[in-house]
Amino acid sequence: MINPVIAEVTRGGIVESRHRGAYAVVDGSGHVVAAEGGIAAAVYPRSAVKAFQCLPVIESGAADRFGFTDEEIALCCSSHNGEQEHVRVARAMLAKASNTEALYECGAHWPYHEATRFHLIRDGQQCASVHNNCSGKHAGMLALARQIGADPHGYTRIDHPVQRLIAKTMGALCDIDLDQQPAGIDGCSVPTWAMPLKSLALGFARFCAPDFAAGRRIIEAVRAHPFMVAGTGDFDTLIMEAVPRVFVKTGAEGVYCACVPHAGLGIALKVDDGASRASEVAIASVLSGLDVWTPDEKAALERFRHHGLANWRKTEVGEVRGLRL
Amino acid sequence: MINPVIAEVTRGGIVESRHRGAYAVVDGSGHVVAAEGGIAAAVYPRSAVKAFQCLPVIESGAADRFGFTDEEIALCCSSHNGEQEHVRVARAMLAKASNTEALYECGAHWPYHEATRFHLIRDGQQCASVHNNCSGKHAGMLALARQIGADPHGYTRIDHPVQRLIAKTMGALCDIDLDQQPAGIDGCSVPTWAMPLKSLALGFARFCAPDFAAGRRIIEAVRAHPFMVAGTGDFDTLIMEAVPRVFVKTGAEGVYCACVPHAGLGIALKVDDGASRASEVAIASVLSGLDVWTPDEKAALERFRHHGLANWRKTEVGEVRGLRL
Repeated sequence: MINPVIAEVTRGGIVESRHRGAYAVVDGSGHVVAAEGGIAAAVYPRSAVKAFQCLPVIESGAADRFGFTDEEIALCCSSHNGEQEHVRVARAMLAKASNTEALYECGAHWPYHEATRFHLIRDGQQCASVHNNCSGKHAGMLALARQIGADPHGYTRIDHPVQRLIAKTMGALCDIDLDQQPAGIDGCSVPTWAMPLKSLALGFARFCAPDFAAGRRIIEAVRAHPFMVAGTGDFDTLIMEAVPRVFVKTGAEGVYCACVPHAGLGIALKVDDGASRASEVAIASVLSGLDVWTPDEKAALERFRHHGLANWRKTEVGEVRGLRL
Repeated sequence: MINPVIAEVTRGGIVESRHRGAYAVVDGSGHVVAAEGGIAAAVYPRSAVKAFQCLPVIESGAADRFGFTDEEIALCCSSHNGEQEHVRVARAMLAKASNTEALYECGAHWPYHEATRFHLIRDGQQCASVHNNCSGKHAGMLALARQIGADPHGYTRIDHPVQRLIAKTMGALCDIDLDQQPAGIDGCSVPTWAMPLKSLALGFARFCAPDFAAGRRIIEAVRAHPFMVAGTGDFDTLIMEAVPRVFVKTGAEGVYCACVPHAGLGIALKVDDGASRASEVAIASVLSGLDVWTPDEKAALERFRHHGLANWRKTEVGEVRGLRL
């Protein structure tokens, strides 16, 4: 099956580039409410399931034992910008669970946030694992290791108790045996298991079910602190600030997941070619097309469906836009 | 027409992302020697035609009048990294034609080369237009303005004599009236005219014809200074260092053009979604598949068809590879 074009980039009035992809909108019973493209093909969810990876941190009692705040739970689900506030919260999470930055296995990269990056460089500093966009998730995993009495060293290995627990939790939620699915290594060294978009969307529908306490706790934490999930100017943060009734999370290689708790819907989307410029406007198109919003919410989501493309002199030369199929 | 998948990205043994695209291999008479996908659709060539934009600099006599060296001519065709040597050569070109950095209309951006960028930031400097990857091309355009007696101000405007001359030259080479084609504004503010891949490939076949002195002069200049065309670790530079009998040039949004002077072939390729990670391995696949190489050249080109994908801890997690169709 060849997926349809779900986003395009224009220049000078014509389409310069096209992005194909697929998505599924699923309710808590597994019914596919809306879909385009191949939703049965296995997709690595990457960082789009950080909220699922955070579930055992809540359900094991680690979050309560170590007194994680909503801000810290939100950072646990984040692909953050490495801004000062993100780093502060990640360090607090480590300290609360008696972990240290030396235990991090996510690898170091410079903060995505330009001003923060420039500040570090000007200051003669190096980037560290705590700046890694996944450092909140890893702080949660290290806390989970402490809680279940596992050696924190090697917590990113697929056979480590932390990852086993995550696979079991995530598989149950998405109704799929992840041990039977292809597994890859993510950018931050933890496993990522491939699964159909349909399963991923089901997981998000169940994640936001009213009777699922751990899921609702995470959603409320993120709703209270959308900045922690991404950062200044980032799509996830902007969209949840504009429309607090939606939960969205980006993943590398063009994945986007979302859920709409008040409507009981889960959404999973993948751009074939992996471009995030496309997954952003495409998920906004899918969300704004759902019949579950107030007029204000719908208008806000519509604004995320397209944005201008500027050149080095800030001249607007084209547009990136999500398509409604 | 839906273009075929020409490059893919793997992770953990399965394909994670796919890139579709089209390409044409054309000889000097316009005969299509090989092709895949829609080669009649209009594509913005972007920076892939910098060598064509440089032709009037040679043909007008500007290069001779201002004593441009081979190194300078190579930089005129470049999307460079902004390394110290690139900046030095761009400044020399400006000075030779009595132009200044203040006349640049390309806009400023930080050098693509990380160490150079970090050095500037640590040094408290700002990025300038001379660091723009197109600063060599713009130095050539400014010299051309001097040579034809045009006001250098506004040299990037589509109706400026410099751009009119470029459109005429490029249209003649590609056998297409660019005034009838869609025009957009490029990242560096100059016009880019859309044309079929077939026309673009024809232009490159003619560009390298033995009796086309200006084209051969540019090709020889680039062959002598492949570093000037891109820089440390860049695909264009690496491929031409490894196989000096090929001329290649990347363009934004997934365009790649090439020519093989000894075989009289021109090649133009566009990745639908605009990804350069795909256009690089795809052009290497097209080139290595041509029956015009020594075994050593073929082996070298094959090596550019795929490369490992590493995560933040430098663990190899997958591969980017060009497909042979």
